Order: sequence, then C-alpha cells, then structure tokens
Amino acid sequence: MRFDDDPRLRAVNMAFYENSFVTGTANRNRLRVRYFFRAEDGHLLADVSSGADAMGPPGFVHGGAMAALLDDAMGVMAWFNKHPVVTANLNVDYKQSLPLGIDTVLETWIERVEGKKVYTYGELRSDKAIHTCARGLFVRLPLESFGEYLEPIRRQYGL
Amino acid sequence: MRFDDDPRLRAVNMAFYENSFVTGTANRNRLRVRYFFRAEDGHLLADVSSGADAMGPPGFVHGGAMAALLDDAMGVMAWFNKHPVVTANLNVDYKQSLPLGIDTVLETWIERVEGKKVYTYGELRSDKAIHTCARGLFVRLPLESFGEYLEPIRRQYGL
Repeated sequence: MRFDDDPRLRAVNMAFYENSFVTGTANRNRLRVRYFFRAEDGHLLADVSSGADAMGPPGFVHGGAMAALLDDAMGVMAWFNKHPVVTANLNVDYKQSLPLGIDTVLETWIERVEGKKVYTYGELRSDKAIHTCARGLFVRLPLESFGEYLEPIRRQYGL
Repeated sequence: MRFDDDPRLRAVNMAFYENSFVTGTANRNRLRVRYFFRAEDGHLLADVSSGADAMGPPGFVHGGAMAALLDDAMGVMAWFNKHPVVTANLNVDYKQSLPLGIDTVLETWIERVEGKKVYTYGELRSDKAIHTCARGLFVRLPLESFGEYLEPIRRQYGL
C-alpha cells in the first residue's frame, strides 16, 4: 500500500481495537481499515475498503458505516494528538454514494481546540470524489476516568 | 419481547437486510436489532441490544454504532412511510454513554417533509436515559433509480 512507503506516516497498532465496532477483526467482510498517524501535522490517514456486509442502499456502502468510520477516525486522531476524548456531536454530510468494494482514503484532523472541546474534520474520498465528510465535537475527559484501561491506553497513544 | 405483544406494531421482515452493515445477520455479536412499524403514526420502533464487538470506549457502545443505528432506523422508517430516500445529512448528539449489553429502544419518526426533503428524528434510550439522539435529512429519489432491486423493495415496503 502507498501509506506503508511514506516515511512520514507511522502505522497504528490495530490490535488495540480488537473489539471495536468499526475496526475490530470480526469486521473483515464489512470494513477493512488501517490507520496511519502523521506526527508532523497531527493528521490521521486510513486506507479503507468495504466488503459485501457493509451494504446500505443496494450495491452501496451504508451511510451508517461511513458515519461510524468518520467518528472512529476522528476520535482516534484526537487521542494521538494527546486529547483523551469521547464524542459529543457528529455531523455527517453525504455528498456522493460510494459503491461497495472501492478503495478509499479517510483523512482527519483537528480544526480547533477550545478548553475541553476538540473540533475535528474528516473526509472519506476515492479517486473520483469526496464521498462523505463530517465534523465532530469531542470532549476531553480526565485520563484517570478510564480506570482499569489506563495502562493499555497510555501505551497505545504514548500518553 | 414487549413489542411482539403490541397489536399496533407490525414486525418488520429483517431478512431483507441480510447484508446490512447495521442489521445484517453477520452482526450478532455486535448489534441485535428488530424493527417494528406502527402504521397509525408512522413511527418505527426497535429493540436493540449490543454484544462485545460493538465496543467503542472500553466497556461502552461505540458512538459510530449508535450513529449507524440511528441512520439506518430513520431511513427504514422513511421508506415505510412511502418515501424512497437516501441520507443527505446525519447529526448525532451523544448525551450519555451506553454500557455494552444494556437493552435499549430506538424510536424514530418524521418531523416534516419539504418537497424532496424528509426531516427525521430518532433517539436511542434505555430505562435510565436518552443516550443518543439524531436528526436526519433524507432526500427522495425516483423509485426507478433502484433498478434491479425495485421488485424486492416494493414487496418490503408495500410501494
């Protein structure tokens, strides 16, 4: 894949997300997602492909799958930028239907930070178009609120 | 289940959504969803439970899973109200985290229709709280644009 050859990109450890609704391994015939973090500008990139069980309208990727992808990638991106967050609002615009099985790139970044609020943007694009884009409002939580999960979280995100 | 005993509710044929990202049968350890349509007011109700592979934050349902559920249910509801639609915008508010494994009810309805635009609302609630709510903007398409899928669609939605 092109992302593996880009020295500015670091492949994210996807095993951490084993049970994730979006990127978990039970997900192979739905979505296949690999994340890459670019530390120099804090962008998260992903290569994404879809299988038959990602269906929404007949022959096309489910709008909910794209919403879930964008939510997930914006959240993970915020964490790699050292913001321990959860989603407060997700606003998704569907611009052009995405046929099943097309390779796509997802890119997300932070637009601004105001106190505990982290405002993010993400888009899912193919060679032909931006299919879907989203804005997210994420809210920072105290890292301690993640309790027993704190140590694996620290290791994953370098916190 | 309580919904099966309500004479105003009609159980939706879920086999139609075999490959759906949200309600497909490959989904058992993620989301289990059954839809019921109430013709008298056009509401769609669902009972929803989540398995271990619906994870987002550790121990909680993924925000993207809830977004996908709300998108799916609002769309299906619009179709049962005789609007052949696809999603144009989805706006989701996360009010309270939802632990994995809690039984929830999802209810959606149409707020208004303006020409080709169908504005919808949906919420996902448990006995304790409304966890997530969403507004959707769906756009009507000519039924003919569904091509080879037209006949099964007609049968599912009584169009």
